[in-house]
Amino acid sequence: MTDSPPIAPFAISLGDPAGIGPEIIGKSWEARGSAGLSPFFAVGDASAFAPHWDGPVQTIDDPAKATDVFKTALPVMQVLECGAVTPGQPSAAGAQCAYQSLEAAVGLARSGSAGAVVTAPISKAQLYSVGFTHPGQTEFIAERCGVSRQNAIMMLAGPGLRVVPMTTHIALRDVPDALSIDLIVERVQATARGLTRNFGIDNPRIALAGLNPHAGESGKMGQEEEELFVPAVERLLADGCDVTGPLPADTMFHEEARVGYDAAVCAYHDQALVPLKTLYFDDAVNITLGLPIVRTSPDHGTAFGIAGQNKARASSMIAAIRMASEAVHNRQALD
Amino acid sequence: MTDSPPIAPFAISLGDPAGIGPEIIGKSWEARGSAGLSPFFAVGDASAFAPHWDGPVQTIDDPAKATDVFKTALPVMQVLECGAVTPGQPSAAGAQCAYQSLEAAVGLARSGSAGAVVTAPISKAQLYSVGFTHPGQTEFIAERCGVSRQNAIMMLAGPGLRVVPMTTHIALRDVPDALSIDLIVERVQATARGLTRNFGIDNPRIALAGLNPHAGESGKMGQEEEELFVPAVERLLADGCDVTGPLPADTMFHEEARVGYDAAVCAYHDQALVPLKTLYFDDAVNITLGLPIVRTSPDHGTAFGIAGQNKARASSMIAAIRMASEAVHNRQALD
Repeated sequence: MTDSPPIAPFAISLGDPAGIGPEIIGKSWEARGSAGLSPFFAVGDASAFAPHWDGPVQTIDDPAKATDVFKTALPVMQVLECGAVTPGQPSAAGAQCAYQSLEAAVGLARSGSAGAVVTAPISKAQLYSVGFTHPGQTEFIAERCGVSRQNAIMMLAGPGLRVVPMTTHIALRDVPDALSIDLIVERVQATARGLTRNFGIDNPRIALAGLNPHAGESGKMGQEEEELFVPAVERLLADGCDVTGPLPADTMFHEEARVGYDAAVCAYHDQALVPLKTLYFDDAVNITLGLPIVRTSPDHGTAFGIAGQNKARASSMIAAIRMASEAVHNRQALD
Repeated sequence: MTDSPPIAPFAISLGDPAGIGPEIIGKSWEARGSAGLSPFFAVGDASAFAPHWDGPVQTIDDPAKATDVFKTALPVMQVLECGAVTPGQPSAAGAQCAYQSLEAAVGLARSGSAGAVVTAPISKAQLYSVGFTHPGQTEFIAERCGVSRQNAIMMLAGPGLRVVPMTTHIALRDVPDALSIDLIVERVQATARGLTRNFGIDNPRIALAGLNPHAGESGKMGQEEEELFVPAVERLLADGCDVTGPLPADTMFHEEARVGYDAAVCAYHDQALVPLKTLYFDDAVNITLGLPIVRTSPDHGTAFGIAGQNKARASSMIAAIRMASEAVHNRQALD
């Protein structure tokens, strides 16, 4: 029996310093013992925490020092100055801080100094104002990792359900024409690979949701199932993929149904996010499949409205850190 | 203090006799004591039960006799002959039986001989083959009640969530253009009226889901929220309706969010049915709002695949009978 190699501490990007990021990072550190969290450190500016959280913070100049500091204080790798932080009041300076923190955290994970990157929530509108040109953090991280956007897949995962939306932030009207046989095949295959690599599932079972009510009922309500989904499933089955569908979305997410698959691949944002957030509003995690590094994040936004009021729940951030640990261990076991 | 007037027994249509209808009616009768069910009787052919269920059946020739018989046997008002019934094998004769049973049950409720009608599941494909021309049972019942299809609203209700889809069995591609300001206003108003009349809620609170992800994010992902939903909400608020929205669908169905409203009005089938069936797969009820009579039904189909095998769960039928009782009592209190 060999010991698994030690895992480098995780880098947590600060997110928008006017949002709840610093608070949920601090609260996750408080929960490190009870939640059994791997050592982590925040990347950014130690002074960004005090307006949000009154726990102990200690700066580090090397990720390798995080594990020791982690026992008594939240380690912060000081890589930038955020300036004055007022919770709930986003600013260009704060957006710049979020941007640099993300950049640095990803770089540390790419270099191996950090075992994974966990990203706190950013404000896209604020980031765009300081020159960020990516649709979101996921696409940014994919680019920094040399992975095409198409291959960096967003999976949302709760304790009893994992979902992958094949289309995300587009109008519902544009969804049908955004789907294709190739897209369905690629997304299902990428999901299967991601389940093996990050969750240690040898023969992943994928449930594929149809687009239309009752999955079209053999073409009675929409043609996409017959024209796109059925041929895609045939191709996937021929390729050895354990995929079932297209399934009626309304009957595939209840407790008994969920036992039958490891992830559901969905046609559009709300088809995936409605069941996930209905069931796991507080502890859903966003994990990016298809990257060379492990990247997770809490499945919520900056919540400017409650920032700095000690009201934010860290449950999703804690779940994100735990899921990163599992993914790192599962990848080690495969390598 | 006056006693509420006695409630006439409920008429339960048989549904397709090759489906699980007879079994779940029989099992509901078995549960009459433990579930506290109001007296009911089946409408159809007493001989249709034996292939499905081995409990006691007694024919009656007058609904008024149902309450007494109900104590010791399932009362069946013999109005037709279903012919030989083979569970799992639908036939034209069976469809004819389902059709006549529905017709008779609705007539009894219309006349006041039955206090409500609860419909067991039919097979639309089978019914069409024997000349049924309505899209479903709801539209048929609306016509028999002299109510336009547009005013007979399908609500699906579980213990902690009620949903009304504004569009139902159409392709997802056709949903955006099927929506209009008038439709939204009418559906929300009809939902509010239905909540008062059937559920006894004086000042119903309606949550209105948007169409697009994040309810369009101020027009960034789709224009329908700005063009249709916002003006509809303004009109409703001016009319004194307690409506909130358009809301992002993914964050409106978790437990804490559901406390804030009495019903969610949704843009399309799966937006309503996914959260409802994810949470309440076994005990969701379909109740038709806008009718002069009370009509409920279990929220599932004929399940031909398990008919006659004593595998069907009666939980949704039992919930439908209970909801009919509540609706009848609430209407009495208002009248």
